[in-house]
Amino acid sequence: MPGPSKVVAPKTRVAVGVVFLSALIYSMATGDRPPPPSADPSQQPPPRSGLQLDSPSIAERDNLSKRESGISATSPMRLRMEAFIKENQQDIVRTLETLDGTPFQIDKWDRPNGGGGISCVLQDGNVFEKAGVNTSVVYGTLPRAAISQMRVNHKALDPDVESLEFFAAGLSLVLHPVNPMAPTVHLNYRYFETANKDGSTNAWWFGGGTDLTPSYLFDEDVIHFHRGIKEACDAHDKDYYARFKKWCDEYFYVKHRNETRGVGGIFFDDLDDTEKDQESLFAFIQGCLGAFLPSYLPIIQKRKEMPYTEKEKQWQQLRRGRYVEFNLVHDRGTAFGLNTPGARIESILMSLPLTARWQYQHEPEKGSREERLVNVLKKPVEWL
Amino acid sequence: MPGPSKVVAPKTRVAVGVVFLSALIYSMATGDRPPPPSADPSQQPPPRSGLQLDSPSIAERDNLSKRESGISATSPMRLRMEAFIKENQQDIVRTLETLDGTPFQIDKWDRPNGGGGISCVLQDGNVFEKAGVNTSVVYGTLPRAAISQMRVNHKALDPDVESLEFFAAGLSLVLHPVNPMAPTVHLNYRYFETANKDGSTNAWWFGGGTDLTPSYLFDEDVIHFHRGIKEACDAHDKDYYARFKKWCDEYFYVKHRNETRGVGGIFFDDLDDTEKDQESLFAFIQGCLGAFLPSYLPIIQKRKEMPYTEKEKQWQQLRRGRYVEFNLVHDRGTAFGLNTPGARIESILMSLPLTARWQYQHEPEKGSREERLVNVLKKPVEWL
Repeated sequence: MPGPSKVVAPKTRVAVGVVFLSALIYSMATGDRPPPPSADPSQQPPPRSGLQLDSPSIAERDNLSKRESGISATSPMRLRMEAFIKENQQDIVRTLETLDGTPFQIDKWDRPNGGGGISCVLQDGNVFEKAGVNTSVVYGTLPRAAISQMRVNHKALDPDVESLEFFAAGLSLVLHPVNPMAPTVHLNYRYFETANKDGSTNAWWFGGGTDLTPSYLFDEDVIHFHRGIKEACDAHDKDYYARFKKWCDEYFYVKHRNETRGVGGIFFDDLDDTEKDQESLFAFIQGCLGAFLPSYLPIIQKRKEMPYTEKEKQWQQLRRGRYVEFNLVHDRGTAFGLNTPGARIESILMSLPLTARWQYQHEPEKGSREERLVNVLKKPVEWL
Repeated sequence: MPGPSKVVAPKTRVAVGVVFLSALIYSMATGDRPPPPSADPSQQPPPRSGLQLDSPSIAERDNLSKRESGISATSPMRLRMEAFIKENQQDIVRTLETLDGTPFQIDKWDRPNGGGGISCVLQDGNVFEKAGVNTSVVYGTLPRAAISQMRVNHKALDPDVESLEFFAAGLSLVLHPVNPMAPTVHLNYRYFETANKDGSTNAWWFGGGTDLTPSYLFDEDVIHFHRGIKEACDAHDKDYYARFKKWCDEYFYVKHRNETRGVGGIFFDDLDDTEKDQESLFAFIQGCLGAFLPSYLPIIQKRKEMPYTEKEKQWQQLRRGRYVEFNLVHDRGTAFGLNTPGARIESILMSLPLTARWQYQHEPEKGSREERLVNVLKKPVEWL
């Protein structure tokens, strides 16, 4: 019987540590933010295990570096990525506010040991039913079990240490429009790094992607979206679009419905120095994020005021139900986050739509636009 | 990367078997029904492993027995439970139809190897937004791995056989009313049995329960509901209500929200001959199911036409969102069902409300009725 046990016993510390780490990494994908200080000790994150470091932490170094010399092209990637995602968050939020005519609610938070984040959410707007654009920056410590787990993909990680300092920074975004003719879009780009004892970089990697989830298919919209992504990819590597498009179709797959969540985009993880050098990959990430507004804005502008029927709105609501199913049942990051004691649930679940619907045995009519969408979701299309 | 792999490879047969079994058992809890015959071989249930039995199967025996002598108090428990849940399903459906003024959609199904079920769903009614009342009866074979797993709770299971025939029958019900003043109710009672090679009963047990999930608390309603259940329990064992009320509070716990799904009721599983003899436990199950309409009808009748505001309806929709979170994230049965190749998803997800809502950082007002509900869900109450 899984009971409401909240006490973190010492013997479960390692297991919790792994989950906690995963949630932190995932926090990059959903805009999770760490728990606020709580009076209830059962709500505190699990205690850190491992060695005390003698050298200054990377959080301390980064703070000093920011104060003394600001951020430039010669700063550590941590600081450059943080500055980059925060600038882009501002641009995106400003653009979406203008488009919608509704201000975002903005919550800023800091962590005592360095790091923090900004959550921007717009709800019940003119164009967007719910829109979230979040950044977060986390400085923390990986326990031994988490290190072994991560070594599968990152051989640079030292297997013989008890703990490792890490850094993670990411921007994530989900936009659910009001108009059923306009597609939902999701985006996330993140950077992860571990530090040696002397504070130098141990392992690092980038991850992320973006994908489109329409209720009604406008091929020209999907083609425009994919073309924008492909151009951003092609500028850095001619193989990336094909590789990461396939990865996206595989990841955003709602297994129990035998369909993809939407019409795809790109998804990738663990891009490190076995892939390309850090500068090249950062340039790639910059290109991808820079391509977002041009790839989505023309679509939402074209669709936001299209007429629609009550029945079409209901179909959108059913599709939103499927979005909820993917995020709650299949998304590994959401699962980790929800299982993490003390995680900030509101940020993890920010990606859920404002409203959703489940209708028993709803079947699209033969030959309808609804049926065509479902057929496309059952068999991913090469849009370009 | 979890990809859209649908092929059941021989080496995964045992693992799939365990999950498949669990889904079948769970099917009792949600009204799942087995997959319809499908042209797509990847959608077929995994092939059965194990010995071929020489004696007639229990499905064959049960069919013969029904034809030759009908069902009486001396019939096997399998047949008595099946007859009992089907009668009760009819009564409940008839009563709810009269109350709502809307007919249920009724789907009947048979399995070629014996068993079958009846799904009754009412949607967009006058009183109920969504109401499902399902029965299912399954004859199947447990592979060795599933048997070992079940031996934890049932020592009568023979650990030295390659496979065991089993039988499962259950009734399950979820009612989501339109009016936010009227509570959602869930109920499930089920019987499980395994057979020896000669067709005689090997192990058997009952499970089930019922629980109430209001959006607005009317203490008198909750007390009425719990009193009805307690009386049904007390007639059979003075300890049952307290034991099973606690079990219910523990099971229907939304861990990531730190609150229970609703205001409880009873929940129990694995009640076998180490608890009481079969006749006594069947009488207990009959008492529980018989208590359902008297415990819920007066509540829905009192609340179904109460006036409510748009804001109260929205609060109900937020609470429905929490219901979805429990069912998709924490309910073990739903998880097993969704992970079972070929499971009938529509039946598993019948328990979800027609509509639900997720609002970023919604906080009930201080001193409001909404706040009182949340406080009660954070700390289960002894209602009687």
